[in-house]
Amino acid sequence: MPLDLLHLTIEVAGTLAFFIAGLLTAARKRLDAVGSFSVACLSAFGGGTMRDLLLDRRPFFWVHNADWLWGLLLLTLLAMRYLDRRHVATTQRAIQWPDALGLGLFAASGTQIALAAGMPALIAVLMGTMTAACGGVLRDIACAEVPAAFNDHQPYAVCAFAGGWLVVLGEHLGWPPGPGLFAGAALACGLRGWTLWRGIRLPEWRAGRR
Amino acid sequence: MPLDLLHLTIEVAGTLAFFIAGLLTAARKRLDAVGSFSVACLSAFGGGTMRDLLLDRRPFFWVHNADWLWGLLLLTLLAMRYLDRRHVATTQRAIQWPDALGLGLFAASGTQIALAAGMPALIAVLMGTMTAACGGVLRDIACAEVPAAFNDHQPYAVCAFAGGWLVVLGEHLGWPPGPGLFAGAALACGLRGWTLWRGIRLPEWRAGRR
Amino acid sequence: MPLDLLHLTIEVAGTLAFFIAGLLTAARKRLDAVGSFSVACLSAFGGGTMRDLLLDRRPFFWVHNADWLWGLLLLTLLAMRYLDRRHVATTQRAIQWPDALGLGLFAASGTQIALAAGMPALIAVLMGTMTAACGGVLRDIACAEVPAAFNDHQPYAVCAFAGGWLVVLGEHLGWPPGPGLFAGAALACGLRGWTLWRGIRLPEWRAGRR
Repeated sequence: MPLDLLHLTIEVAGTLAFFIAGLLTAARKRLDAVGSFSVACLSAFGGGTMRDLLLDRRPFFWVHNADWLWGLLLLTLLAMRYLDRRHVATTQRAIQWPDALGLGLFAASGTQIALAAGMPALIAVLMGTMTAACGGVLRDIACAEVPAAFNDHQPYAVCAFAGGWLVVLGEHLGWPPGPGLFAGAALACGLRGWTLWRGIRLPEWRAGRR
Repeated sequence: MPLDLLHLTIEVAGTLAFFIAGLLTAARKRLDAVGSFSVACLSAFGGGTMRDLLLDRRPFFWVHNADWLWGLLLLTLLAMRYLDRRHVATTQRAIQWPDALGLGLFAASGTQIALAAGMPALIAVLMGTMTAACGGVLRDIACAEVPAAFNDHQPYAVCAFAGGWLVVLGEHLGWPPGPGLFAGAALACGLRGWTLWRGIRLPEWRAGRR
Repeated sequence: MPLDLLHLTIEVAGTLAFFIAGLLTAARKRLDAVGSFSVACLSAFGGGTMRDLLLDRRPFFWVHNADWLWGLLLLTLLAMRYLDRRHVATTQRAIQWPDALGLGLFAASGTQIALAAGMPALIAVLMGTMTAACGGVLRDIACAEVPAAFNDHQPYAVCAFAGGWLVVLGEHLGWPPGPGLFAGAALACGLRGWTLWRGIRLPEWRAGRR
């Protein structure tokens, strides 16, 4: 499989996983069709949009592929019609792996885009992390919930952060963009899989403990 | 009445209706004067501001009419002082019609502005919808509530969406901007009135049903 | 102490106070390390970022001092590890004064920046107010709470608003930028201290009273 096709495949799989994660949140909150579609779009496109807004890049990445939105709208209506309560847990498990792929790719590509826009390394890595994790944060805020990325104690954004630094290192060592991207994406995705498997948790507040 | 004056009248009526809807939410949440004014401004100006932010248009539409804000501040203080609990339901009913006018006008004008900025049709219509519906969404998020536009099952944004497509069709058929604007606005506003009258509801989640 | 050093000292003290206020909110909501750092950054930098986003100023003020973020990350981890439940109230009281200094300085400098960007007086003052108060609003929204600035009935944003008008007056009278900045900051900060001391409260809704 040529690199471009691999890139596109991961991008589509990751975006779909983020979109479906938004739909599951919408189902739990019993949103209507407008709310479900809006929240799922925030989940799928919110991170990259926030990055582009902060970097002042226009047009947004979703402008030129707008027709995909029709497919996502159809997916929303089908999910609302056919998704049964018994399917939710299965769906949640099934999207965990494409979600990890998306996490890796969006963290690495977000970092590259921010570096190309002249950001210093730390800011670029944080923008990559935001690309990967901010969609979920906006999704939860729009549902009036504390973002899962802020209180589920899973090292989700931390994996993106690590992957971003590998992209920076690659750029520093003069790697071409393609391998740098995939190395960073693989590190973030691998870390995410490993922390899921080992059940690793982020530190919590001493003051919060009983 | 010349078209320009009609346009201005509807714009003022719609903005006032959105602002008052924000005040009613603020009263329900018992916000203080600062919170009430902020939330009402989000409700009235949030949709257009979000559109302009995404389209990278500056200065914002409220910059050159800033003095109006003094009037809205006065309205806030008067409402806090004199609005009685018994008036809330009456006010809510009274603003339903100017609110529908605003919905129509802002959806149509937002779509036109996005088309003029070179957006593809679907994105332009979604930007028009956002212009009309996003102020209420931001208002509710700022009050830590699930946005009514996301879970009240009323086809509010859907009416704006339909009106936006009529604007696109008009542009495609070479109508002049004025009639295109009013046709789109009338369709969105009429649909809103019709769905209110018929009590039409959006689809809900099968998984959410008891 | 030369003016520049005084300015920098107040800016650092105010930013730290805003950051720590974010950490205390995060502790109360039992966020994890990622959430605590994110919410504290929103609290410290959200107001100025929102102002720059609305004024379309880039790069953001935090881009060139990004290395400070490592110190704030360390502060977050230390606070999570060592902050005891008994320290919370003391910390809250201790940051009240640097917080008031930050409120004053950010309100005055935000107003100056907006005036320099060509905004009319009222908009510039509102942008200054937003610079000072919006970080806390975003912090609370990200924690799914009604913003304290919207419902704690303390005249926090009102003090910033008053300070901003003094900056406008100074500009109108031809004062040099330095004294204008400090006069506005001192007024806002002094008003905040005075209202805290006197326990002055903002008007509330008649409809909300029992």
